[in-house]
Amino acid sequence: MKSKIISIGDEILIGQIINTNAAYIGEKLFSAGFPVDRTVVIGDEEQILLDELKDSTENYDITIITGGLGPTHDDITKPTLVKFFNDRLETDNKVLEHVKNIFSSRNINMPEVNIAQALVPSKSKVIWNANGTAPGLMFDLNEKIIIAIPGVPFEMKDLINNEIIPLLKKKFEKKFEKVFLHKTLLTTGSGESSLNEMLGNVKEFIGNSKLAFLPSATGVRLRINAEGNSISDAEKKISAIEKIIRSKIQDYIFGENDDDLETVIGRILRERKKTLSVAESCTGGKISSRIVSVPGSSEYYIGGVCVYSNIEKIKLLNIKEGTLSKYGAVSEETAIEMAVGVREIMKTDYSISTTGIAGPSGGTDKKPVGLVWIGFSSNEKTFAMSFLFGEERQRNIERASQRALEILRRELLNIKLIF
Amino acid sequence: MKSKIISIGDEILIGQIINTNAAYIGEKLFSAGFPVDRTVVIGDEEQILLDELKDSTENYDITIITGGLGPTHDDITKPTLVKFFNDRLETDNKVLEHVKNIFSSRNINMPEVNIAQALVPSKSKVIWNANGTAPGLMFDLNEKIIIAIPGVPFEMKDLINNEIIPLLKKKFEKKFEKVFLHKTLLTTGSGESSLNEMLGNVKEFIGNSKLAFLPSATGVRLRINAEGNSISDAEKKISAIEKIIRSKIQDYIFGENDDDLETVIGRILRERKKTLSVAESCTGGKISSRIVSVPGSSEYYIGGVCVYSNIEKIKLLNIKEGTLSKYGAVSEETAIEMAVGVREIMKTDYSISTTGIAGPSGGTDKKPVGLVWIGFSSNEKTFAMSFLFGEERQRNIERASQRALEILRRELLNIKLIF
Repeated sequence: MKSKIISIGDEILIGQIINTNAAYIGEKLFSAGFPVDRTVVIGDEEQILLDELKDSTENYDITIITGGLGPTHDDITKPTLVKFFNDRLETDNKVLEHVKNIFSSRNINMPEVNIAQALVPSKSKVIWNANGTAPGLMFDLNEKIIIAIPGVPFEMKDLINNEIIPLLKKKFEKKFEKVFLHKTLLTTGSGESSLNEMLGNVKEFIGNSKLAFLPSATGVRLRINAEGNSISDAEKKISAIEKIIRSKIQDYIFGENDDDLETVIGRILRERKKTLSVAESCTGGKISSRIVSVPGSSEYYIGGVCVYSNIEKIKLLNIKEGTLSKYGAVSEETAIEMAVGVREIMKTDYSISTTGIAGPSGGTDKKPVGLVWIGFSSNEKTFAMSFLFGEERQRNIERASQRALEILRRELLNIKLIF
Repeated sequence: MKSKIISIGDEILIGQIINTNAAYIGEKLFSAGFPVDRTVVIGDEEQILLDELKDSTENYDITIITGGLGPTHDDITKPTLVKFFNDRLETDNKVLEHVKNIFSSRNINMPEVNIAQALVPSKSKVIWNANGTAPGLMFDLNEKIIIAIPGVPFEMKDLINNEIIPLLKKKFEKKFEKVFLHKTLLTTGSGESSLNEMLGNVKEFIGNSKLAFLPSATGVRLRINAEGNSISDAEKKISAIEKIIRSKIQDYIFGENDDDLETVIGRILRERKKTLSVAESCTGGKISSRIVSVPGSSEYYIGGVCVYSNIEKIKLLNIKEGTLSKYGAVSEETAIEMAVGVREIMKTDYSISTTGIAGPSGGTDKKPVGLVWIGFSSNEKTFAMSFLFGEERQRNIERASQRALEILRRELLNIKLIF
């Protein structure tokens, strides 16, 4: 089984749009057992797409094309498919009605040009796009399949999940010889090489499966890929490898697959009916906005204060004036008083705080750019820890937010704070 | 001139990593006058890369390869280049010294495997990578050029900007017949089709240039592409088109190219020596974190409060209890009192506030998911406006933040609040 994605659009080639569609489709196809072998991005040019279609019919079982299906003159996908398959366009009345409905439900007169959206190649099958005017199109060539869908992410995602994956599974079910599965363990608080060292000789325990290290500014994801004769066979392999990995680096693993730290923390707080507040200086609202990004966070998140000047630190968080004059805003003492202050004001079970120098300027010899104090407070204990991140402002804000949330997670789960 | 990018890595194909490198390189090459014609993503397999190299030498003037240059067994780029060019590896002593220095400066013993980083194909020229152990490699085939660089974004960016773009400009300067330039106007507050209507018949004023509409959740970017015989020729074309666009939709344009709303607002506040504070409920810290993402924001941003429960709204922001019980937390009155409250506490010239129902649950018939009240307060006036966004939590948070910042921008510049 070989699969290919063709992304169409000058705006992708010149980097004005990042190709998140290909990543989304790649992940969904991979998880469904159709790993993508090649992704190509091409401009809006007929001849280039014709060449790609030739390559697809010769070398790939599955081809997914996104983009170029709109109603304007620079949308070349549909006419090029018609040309390639020596086909002609005809009106699909069901689609036409759907297109008209979309406009009338918004009380907008339908521009004439949209009638063309209901024209489909006679040799293709319509894939129903409930969310937009351009239908998906499928050319089923017995052994091979070519599918074109709109590039609008919202429409594309729905089509992939609810139409195309089921369709591919049904069509190719007999061809399945191998099952591919993957699982990702999410770590934070340790670098790639330290994790590598803690894991020891990986080859000794992964067998014919694969383990990939995927580092980012806020952690390292470990992806286990396994191939099996059945789903349960592949699952067994993954679970055996996961067990060994967990036995070696369990403390650094905060979640799996699509989890994130704020969601994991949210689950714990909600289960225990505990509450949280945040006082941020250098992270400037980043921690708060991450917590709030989780649906239902209002159950445990009471609120946060972002303090960006000394005067406000004193007033809003009841920080002693002496603390700031004696130790400075970026200090263990201030971080602690911020955490204590916000927890008292918001009356929460837990609180975290940040104060630091995000950069690019504002550093001194003793307190360089990248220095961040993170405070924690609960009924049982209160402390602050310092970290020296890098020189880049955005990265420092991201890393400080991640570390603060990780400190909270470890305190909630009684895990040692070794970083 | 034809250019191609080859991105190597299974993790990109299966969507675990989004191909931001290709977008970055595409944008930089385009701006330098080498628009990318094709991007391909392939896995770590020798034969596939050999086929791509063949295609490159036959059809492309410039090929940039990223990824697969590390020291481990699954890094195939270097050995495959050696095979393709019928070459051999030899040690580059300068690179070896550099690799050793990287480890010794971090007080880490260099693992043996890293010696291989200094092995380079004899027919290639080293492109100096100051930030990492894997050097860039260039094969100069007179008319055509093939360059391989590491995929680590930090290293890649530096190599593209400081080594590769200058190198390409020098090599191909005589071949330049045409100059390509682009400029992007950033709009917010109006949809794609309304902007289209306001602009009228675009073809009448763009000549042989191009105008692309690039919509997102928070606005529409208008990209003007022009081709000219010289830089000044292309610049003239862009500036003529820009003037016409601005004459029609000036109020909606908040910036250009890589600007963002928070940076634009920051410039105005800093120039005028005015200060800002923020009270957020449904946006949960998003506005604050956007403001703080701008270097130097501490000059004008005093702080923010994120209130996520009624009790805290009352206490921290001095909101009258009667307001909440009578009108509810999501109301014009509460939004106004939040803005007034935070401005008084923080003693700022301006303040903005948000209160709404981000979703996915919590809506009622009268106050559905997506309803957001945005408050504004200054010495001169105080008001709130309501918006009905959609059903998706993250999009609602993003759109409410953008709209709040846009209201502030328009108030600062005395632009009518028509959305």
